[in-house]
Amino acid sequence: MAPPRFHRLVIHGVGLLGGSLGMALKRRGMVQTVVGWGRSMERLERARQLGAIDEAHTRPEPALDGADALVLAVPPRQIRDRLPEIAALIPAGAFVTDVGSVKERIVEAAEAALPNGVLFIGSHPMAGSEKTGAEHGRSDFYEGSPCLVTPTERTRPEALDLARRFWEALGSRVVVLDPARHDRLLAGVSHLPHLLAAALMQTLARGDEPLEIVAEVAAGGLRDTTRIAASDPELWRQICVENAPALLARLDEFIGVLNEWRAALDKSTPDGRAMEKQFEDGQKARLLLDASE
Amino acid sequence: MAPPRFHRLVIHGVGLLGGSLGMALKRRGMVQTVVGWGRSMERLERARQLGAIDEAHTRPEPALDGADALVLAVPPRQIRDRLPEIAALIPAGAFVTDVGSVKERIVEAAEAALPNGVLFIGSHPMAGSEKTGAEHGRSDFYEGSPCLVTPTERTRPEALDLARRFWEALGSRVVVLDPARHDRLLAGVSHLPHLLAAALMQTLARGDEPLEIVAEVAAGGLRDTTRIAASDPELWRQICVENAPALLARLDEFIGVLNEWRAALDKSTPDGRAMEKQFEDGQKARLLLDASE
Repeated sequence: MAPPRFHRLVIHGVGLLGGSLGMALKRRGMVQTVVGWGRSMERLERARQLGAIDEAHTRPEPALDGADALVLAVPPRQIRDRLPEIAALIPAGAFVTDVGSVKERIVEAAEAALPNGVLFIGSHPMAGSEKTGAEHGRSDFYEGSPCLVTPTERTRPEALDLARRFWEALGSRVVVLDPARHDRLLAGVSHLPHLLAAALMQTLARGDEPLEIVAEVAAGGLRDTTRIAASDPELWRQICVENAPALLARLDEFIGVLNEWRAALDKSTPDGRAMEKQFEDGQKARLLLDASE
Repeated sequence: MAPPRFHRLVIHGVGLLGGSLGMALKRRGMVQTVVGWGRSMERLERARQLGAIDEAHTRPEPALDGADALVLAVPPRQIRDRLPEIAALIPAGAFVTDVGSVKERIVEAAEAALPNGVLFIGSHPMAGSEKTGAEHGRSDFYEGSPCLVTPTERTRPEALDLARRFWEALGSRVVVLDPARHDRLLAGVSHLPHLLAAALMQTLARGDEPLEIVAEVAAGGLRDTTRIAASDPELWRQICVENAPALLARLDEFIGVLNEWRAALDKSTPDGRAMEKQFEDGQKARLLLDASE
């Protein structure tokens, strides 16, 4: 499928995802003018120097004037807040998507706010890093990672088609699923693992050994397991709040599994057979993950 | 410090750790004859073909005859079981250590079983992988990783000196601490993370989405977080059983932290500020881990 081409594409938020998006679009010549719109002119200027955007604005009016595409690349809560504010400024026929990690509430807000003539669909590129800021951006940032696209019954077929071609042109593998299923799935695949990585580091930090000793003896396993605990707390707070019911359900299932481990450990003779079974279940599932890679 | 040199060093168990040890010792010329002792002649032969050992035995008598060093590289439970069986076969003055991931019970068993003339000290090289078998072994396997050495008041100074020079010659960073402290520390730094990785995969496997879908949408974060869930269940069962009291204590602390997260999530309006604080605590600790690397 041919990549879509836009005259004037606006990226709201020029952090790691927005900045990388600008670099990727410019490298592929998919957009004539990439417009950065954000709160801080300093960050926008840096993004321009890094080659992520051509034009910088701190107000939406001049940014969106004449635009035929808009990508909202700010944290989920800001995406929802922004939509009604800018709905009237988006030219008819423009393609609009976002990169939020939680989809149901964003898609609801977009469908409530945006006029019918706008081609909106929610996107969630699963590229990312514990790093932040356009200075860590890369034009190959979206290559090889999944991008979840979440149409509803109200989504126009042209919007889905554009989103598919857009993300595939950037090298992502597009997976289509509805917003509610997306959020339940991501609660387990992404949000719970982030919560657990943070909780593990909290547990170690509260232990009786100083973290310097922990670091001294930590092997690669602990570093891998907790790498995502270095992620931006403000962003992740928003993600957890936006997806609280699904995340809570998954957390309770996880605590249920931990209680099985507890029962096997908490005996005068710990139940080795039960623990081996638990490890086997985990191993089997983990190997399947690799096999499907 | 000069590397120690041995005439005849016996490695009991020629898996990933034992096999790599043989390759590393031979590459550095630290041992005249590396002797493999194990249950399966087939595995020993493979280890010999891989250059990990020079001589292979399935019985301890011929293996230990004339040996001046012995490294027990089998799972923790086997190490404890083997010690009284071979105590009388170890030549006086020989250096004896092990690579078990849990130390207190092994060191107790060794000190009870071994005659005074034997220079025993417990070791725990924190090199490893979710892979198993000498075929994944490498002569640089121990380079750059910590090796925890656990003397007690009964340990002879020559044994500590030998262990330090031995592991440092192989490229490990030696950290000295007593066996009980080792086990408490490792419960948090290694055993709990393994348990959690397995439990996370179990939770995902029991979810309503097939693991193929999970794999399709999983980003690097989940793969990193759960990599160690692919580890050998039988080995990890033993480790958890050997260190059950310390691991249980750590697991309960972890469940306590999860209940704080639960409380923040389980509200009509989820407590974003509390969750951000939790993420901040986790991030702060994780960044300290990197800073001390």
